[in-house]
Amino acid sequence: MDFAFDERTERLRAELTDFLTEHVYPAEPVYARQVEEATDPWAAPPVLDELKAEARRRGLWNLFLPDERFGAGLGNLAYAPLAELTGRSPALAPEALNCSAPDTGNMELLAAFGSPEQQQRWLEPLLAGEIRSAFCMTEPEVASSDAANIATRIDRDGDHYVINGRKWFSSGAMSPRCAVFIVMGKTDPTAERHRQQSMVLVPRDTPGVHIRRGLTVFGYTDGPHGGHAEIEFRDVRVPVSNVVGGEGEGFAIAQARLGPGRIHHCMRLVGMAERALELMCRRVTERVAFGRPLAEQGVIGEWIAESRVRIEQARLLVLKTAWLMDTVGNRGAHTEIQAIKIATPATAEWVIDKAIQAHGGAGVSQDFPLAVLWAQARMLRIADGPDEVHRMSLARRELKRHRS
Amino acid sequence: MDFAFDERTERLRAELTDFLTEHVYPAEPVYARQVEEATDPWAAPPVLDELKAEARRRGLWNLFLPDERFGAGLGNLAYAPLAELTGRSPALAPEALNCSAPDTGNMELLAAFGSPEQQQRWLEPLLAGEIRSAFCMTEPEVASSDAANIATRIDRDGDHYVINGRKWFSSGAMSPRCAVFIVMGKTDPTAERHRQQSMVLVPRDTPGVHIRRGLTVFGYTDGPHGGHAEIEFRDVRVPVSNVVGGEGEGFAIAQARLGPGRIHHCMRLVGMAERALELMCRRVTERVAFGRPLAEQGVIGEWIAESRVRIEQARLLVLKTAWLMDTVGNRGAHTEIQAIKIATPATAEWVIDKAIQAHGGAGVSQDFPLAVLWAQARMLRIADGPDEVHRMSLARRELKRHRS
Amino acid sequence: MDFAFDERTERLRAELTDFLTEHVYPAEPVYARQVEEATDPWAAPPVLDELKAEARRRGLWNLFLPDERFGAGLGNLAYAPLAELTGRSPALAPEALNCSAPDTGNMELLAAFGSPEQQQRWLEPLLAGEIRSAFCMTEPEVASSDAANIATRIDRDGDHYVINGRKWFSSGAMSPRCAVFIVMGKTDPTAERHRQQSMVLVPRDTPGVHIRRGLTVFGYTDGPHGGHAEIEFRDVRVPVSNVVGGEGEGFAIAQARLGPGRIHHCMRLVGMAERALELMCRRVTERVAFGRPLAEQGVIGEWIAESRVRIEQARLLVLKTAWLMDTVGNRGAHTEIQAIKIATPATAEWVIDKAIQAHGGAGVSQDFPLAVLWAQARMLRIADGPDEVHRMSLARRELKRHRS
Amino acid sequence: MDFAFDERTERLRAELTDFLTEHVYPAEPVYARQVEEATDPWAAPPVLDELKAEARRRGLWNLFLPDERFGAGLGNLAYAPLAELTGRSPALAPEALNCSAPDTGNMELLAAFGSPEQQQRWLEPLLAGEIRSAFCMTEPEVASSDAANIATRIDRDGDHYVINGRKWFSSGAMSPRCAVFIVMGKTDPTAERHRQQSMVLVPRDTPGVHIRRGLTVFGYTDGPHGGHAEIEFRDVRVPVSNVVGGEGEGFAIAQARLGPGRIHHCMRLVGMAERALELMCRRVTERVAFGRPLAEQGVIGEWIAESRVRIEQARLLVLKTAWLMDTVGNRGAHTEIQAIKIATPATAEWVIDKAIQAHGGAGVSQDFPLAVLWAQARMLRIADGPDEVHRMSLARRELKRHRS
Repeated sequence: MDFAFDERTERLRAELTDFLTEHVYPAEPVYARQVEEATDPWAAPPVLDELKAEARRRGLWNLFLPDERFGAGLGNLAYAPLAELTGRSPALAPEALNCSAPDTGNMELLAAFGSPEQQQRWLEPLLAGEIRSAFCMTEPEVASSDAANIATRIDRDGDHYVINGRKWFSSGAMSPRCAVFIVMGKTDPTAERHRQQSMVLVPRDTPGVHIRRGLTVFGYTDGPHGGHAEIEFRDVRVPVSNVVGGEGEGFAIAQARLGPGRIHHCMRLVGMAERALELMCRRVTERVAFGRPLAEQGVIGEWIAESRVRIEQARLLVLKTAWLMDTVGNRGAHTEIQAIKIATPATAEWVIDKAIQAHGGAGVSQDFPLAVLWAQARMLRIADGPDEVHRMSLARRELKRHRS
Repeated sequence: MDFAFDERTERLRAELTDFLTEHVYPAEPVYARQVEEATDPWAAPPVLDELKAEARRRGLWNLFLPDERFGAGLGNLAYAPLAELTGRSPALAPEALNCSAPDTGNMELLAAFGSPEQQQRWLEPLLAGEIRSAFCMTEPEVASSDAANIATRIDRDGDHYVINGRKWFSSGAMSPRCAVFIVMGKTDPTAERHRQQSMVLVPRDTPGVHIRRGLTVFGYTDGPHGGHAEIEFRDVRVPVSNVVGGEGEGFAIAQARLGPGRIHHCMRLVGMAERALELMCRRVTERVAFGRPLAEQGVIGEWIAESRVRIEQARLLVLKTAWLMDTVGNRGAHTEIQAIKIATPATAEWVIDKAIQAHGGAGVSQDFPLAVLWAQARMLRIADGPDEVHRMSLARRELKRHRS
Repeated sequence: MDFAFDERTERLRAELTDFLTEHVYPAEPVYARQVEEATDPWAAPPVLDELKAEARRRGLWNLFLPDERFGAGLGNLAYAPLAELTGRSPALAPEALNCSAPDTGNMELLAAFGSPEQQQRWLEPLLAGEIRSAFCMTEPEVASSDAANIATRIDRDGDHYVINGRKWFSSGAMSPRCAVFIVMGKTDPTAERHRQQSMVLVPRDTPGVHIRRGLTVFGYTDGPHGGHAEIEFRDVRVPVSNVVGGEGEGFAIAQARLGPGRIHHCMRLVGMAERALELMCRRVTERVAFGRPLAEQGVIGEWIAESRVRIEQARLLVLKTAWLMDTVGNRGAHTEIQAIKIATPATAEWVIDKAIQAHGGAGVSQDFPLAVLWAQARMLRIADGPDEVHRMSLARRELKRHRS
Repeated sequence: MDFAFDERTERLRAELTDFLTEHVYPAEPVYARQVEEATDPWAAPPVLDELKAEARRRGLWNLFLPDERFGAGLGNLAYAPLAELTGRSPALAPEALNCSAPDTGNMELLAAFGSPEQQQRWLEPLLAGEIRSAFCMTEPEVASSDAANIATRIDRDGDHYVINGRKWFSSGAMSPRCAVFIVMGKTDPTAERHRQQSMVLVPRDTPGVHIRRGLTVFGYTDGPHGGHAEIEFRDVRVPVSNVVGGEGEGFAIAQARLGPGRIHHCMRLVGMAERALELMCRRVTERVAFGRPLAEQGVIGEWIAESRVRIEQARLLVLKTAWLMDTVGNRGAHTEIQAIKIATPATAEWVIDKAIQAHGGAGVSQDFPLAVLWAQARMLRIADGPDEVHRMSLARRELKRHRS
């Protein structure tokens, strides 16, 4: 057992920290101004392209992708502390490094299950950061944490599939740069429960694709990231070659996609919590009320200590999970992946909430990143399966252990 | 001791419930659509004027004002259950009844401390719902929960005051209908700690008043309510007759204003929590996952029961506080006013959070009022003094009791 | 709506407060010493008899019993603030006033359902404080919150019942003064679900009654109160006239008994929490660390304020529930009875826990009543049905409201 | 970074697990019976000596002591998972392995700072498990978390020290086997703040040592472990050679002693939580209410999942802290030691509380180890410095980081 990062990781952490300090943090106010002045609410501000160019120049690009043919070839444990650092500026850093959801998951999926043609057409421009993509899974009408509920139909008609259904919270899909959707639907509702679903690639400009609106998350449109779209698919036709993996593979691929996706979110959440703690520490040192800095008053010290204690625990569990995924595979790390999916959003939410409170009115406003960080952390108690579904599943596994 | 509402209250509750059912709830989607389509992001949607007209027709108008010369003449205890009902639709009902913050507090202030000229010029149109008003207290640069920190200067210059300073979270001030600001500043920084401050009336169109921007609250601009403005006062001149009450009275008036203001917020919060609980109960009955309604699964029942238990307790404490204010005065109810200021935002936040979770992605979106309700409840753990300041103050009083 | 106590209540509260101050609090150390020196671990210390005599002399006797033929004739609302006061010294005051569980519930039961012979033989000496009684309901082998689980058999054999079964947590039954048990068992397992059970009176010295041992509650035997017994009933024969109410009435009587029993516990819990808060306030004022009294440090003020806020809410809910029971009956107050059963143990536990922490090592020891208060509060999250069962039941009722 | 245990650790874990399964768990009911039947409430039951002999035979002895001259020579990281296992049966396993507090800390102290004579006279029989020892630090009259508060005097008188003072919570000191006390007191109250204190060895039978009574911890005397004594030292004379380390070294030695002491407690707490979780899982699988096992009902699954998530995080933080202590020393691991002192008692308390609730009445009784486990976990939020002191200290260090 050894808790030290290896040399390469230490070097990459230092390089990434430099990039954040020299380019990303200074770009935050620029980004905010460009967002405010933007004419298209769904477009990424130009500063992002500058950051992407700089990150690529520094070799900080596609770090998330363990497949050396396409990405940096880092394992989960090597990537985790880097992803954490990007979480410190989640609006800018992940996308600057071409490591932002949902593209990361979609790129992994195409790298693992895509045909050579699919890889050439979609994976390559994604890896180059030229286009973006969306993942169309959740539906408004049903509890989508139960895959059997999916109502979207993908019907074979000769050499084509015809897609009908309604999806929402398709993040990124409002963006003009978003060129392709991976759509989950049922190709065979009569098949065995987990063989009914398939995934097909649908170019955004295919006739019948109607992007209805952007959903808000606690008042945020997340416009510069392409928002969260509600999309109607009405008799949308794509060639059968657009299926990913094969008919009936949808559920299995979705499961494979979720493991890394979840851990990436969790890694970043640790960084978000660290950023909030740092902001809190600075604020309470500077602000004075009733004659003394807030730092010396009442419950503030408790918040800071508790934040540190909770963050350390969450980070270690994320790192151990990453190590397990590297050593025994995603399936062997199932319990731990669920554990971090439960633990880290709650930890980050708690820390950020305290940081907000320590900032007073400023904390809920656009002047600090805290309110938007909070909304993202809160959303992650719902996205990719609500806490309650993960807890029930984890509990069943725990009970099984004690039965035998 | 008697926990039954009196007859008049029961009648008013029934009348208000009818108004909500027949007019307000049906207006909610209309309001949402009008907001979306509005060209001025700070204007109130037209449906609000229709609701105001109808409420006035039904005699449901200015219920908050205990002064019979101006308002309905209800005491706090009589008004509390009505204010609670308005909290069920907080974007529409309070303003429809001309009972929305910050105008209510400003009207009370003018009714109690305004000169006849001030009352004629500002109170009358406010009572008629023709104009709105803002209260400029909080400042961005200092911890405003400590009144001694206030940096805005109000300097006498002959027959005028000259105002210099910067305020923010001046709710309503972005609205074109907002005609007047009540501005708190220091007229005499050398006076005794609580005699340094004064309040002056400043018409919104006075030269030197620069409305800089609207602050967001977790991504919400609260535009249709006039937002939360940051305002710069640069050499703003108003006649000395615009002082409210008298020089040095600012702190005392602010304290007098806060009591009822706080309890109104708390009353509405109880209604907000009830609305969230109702939405949660409906959702979990209708949604099915893994073959059963959510209502029958896992922790959902705990949330519902806990919500009911917490709401009942919060409501009773609010009602008792209202009764105390009516019987022994705001000062005698000091502890209880602080207690509800601490308890009800936390209770409402808790209940709404659970309702959001039960709704999944829909809960954080614009399709349900839950996310915006949450943001308001969360904000009230900061507005009018953060929880921590109230807790410290309440604790000091409790400790004093046990010392003697 | 009126939150003031009426005159009689104010007078009784003053009289009871005098009794506590003059007799009960001074008796606490005497009691502790007598318990320590006792030879019989299950006997009540002699000081208790002195307190009982004094209480009776002052007319503070059987206050719990609303039936004027037998007791003080106070309704629930009138009794509630008195029961709260007894909770301030729960080891002494309730029994001193002949108002301690489980005798109160048993006396109510006999007053309401007992035959004249049963009342003469058992109720009269109980009312006189000459004997004590136990209620044998819970069983070790089954989840007793589900009455259908009860395994004890009460079989008719001519003019007698023959009882076989095992009960535990029969509080008071270890005491030599405990003369009679009310035993719940099944007389007809084939009857409809809630008509299978009956209650019979079993004198403690009946052959076949084997008192096996006393159960501990977090290390406390509660010996001076007669402990919590495990009892085996092996072919115990009692005349059929010992049935209470009638065959098949057991479940209905148990339900009738639980309402007041629960509210009495809750009333006392409010007093327990008040006592703990008082002790905490005194301790933190007197103790100095790092140069300042604890009262001025860190989180202590938060605890005190939060305690006050929570206690006030719990008390109001208990009082409202008492009022409801008086005005619409126990059945009409069902939701509120469950709500206080859920809320007050948790509130008291929270407050006492903080008081313990503020006392350091002294808090967990025998030098302060805090640890034993805590154990009692914690036990009440389990006794008379665990929180979770009450929450599920309350949730079902809430869901029903929103369905229609 | 590597989360796998090394081979030696895996082997020792297997050996220790075998010992627990074959000897310790089966001895638990024997121990309970022997405690109940004991005539001396402060004596260890005979089964303990059998376990000690067996553990020694298996080489599972003094595992805690990293100094190879005296103990097993394991570092903190190697010992941590073993200590965790002993926490599964904390009444038996630690003492069976001669690894129980406070002897472990005292042995470390003597190994590091004792003179050869002190080591021969006291350390050797302690290492052999022939005698026990106590650590007399905490005082009843002052907040002992502030070392400057210590009131016990150790005055030089020729070749002797004369000790006067009162200590309490001297764990183990009631035991007839406890042969020696390490007493902390002030030799020079005029010296610099942290040089005033010294430690001296006081044989238990020295004239002037008055053992006044055993303190209880939530009703538990912890008698078989020698209880928690209140001791008066009245003109107690010991030779000056009994000082440990040297005059003025008391504070520094106490600090050195606390690091490992705290982590040992935390390691065991993880094991205690695991035991509770295991008991909970078994209970809810077996118990049926309302027709279904508890495991399938309501909130139970949440408790189990949350327990697993929290335990995993706490364990990792304990292990990382152990690793830090081994690699950068106790001082370098200061923040982490405080973090686990804050986190693990709270985690264990939470898990055990839920396990108790899942057991109903049985959970608070002597029939399961849960209530006593709970009392120990709760006590550790106070012992060795209350949570609040650690949080304030940790917060100060965190704030410093962000200032520079």
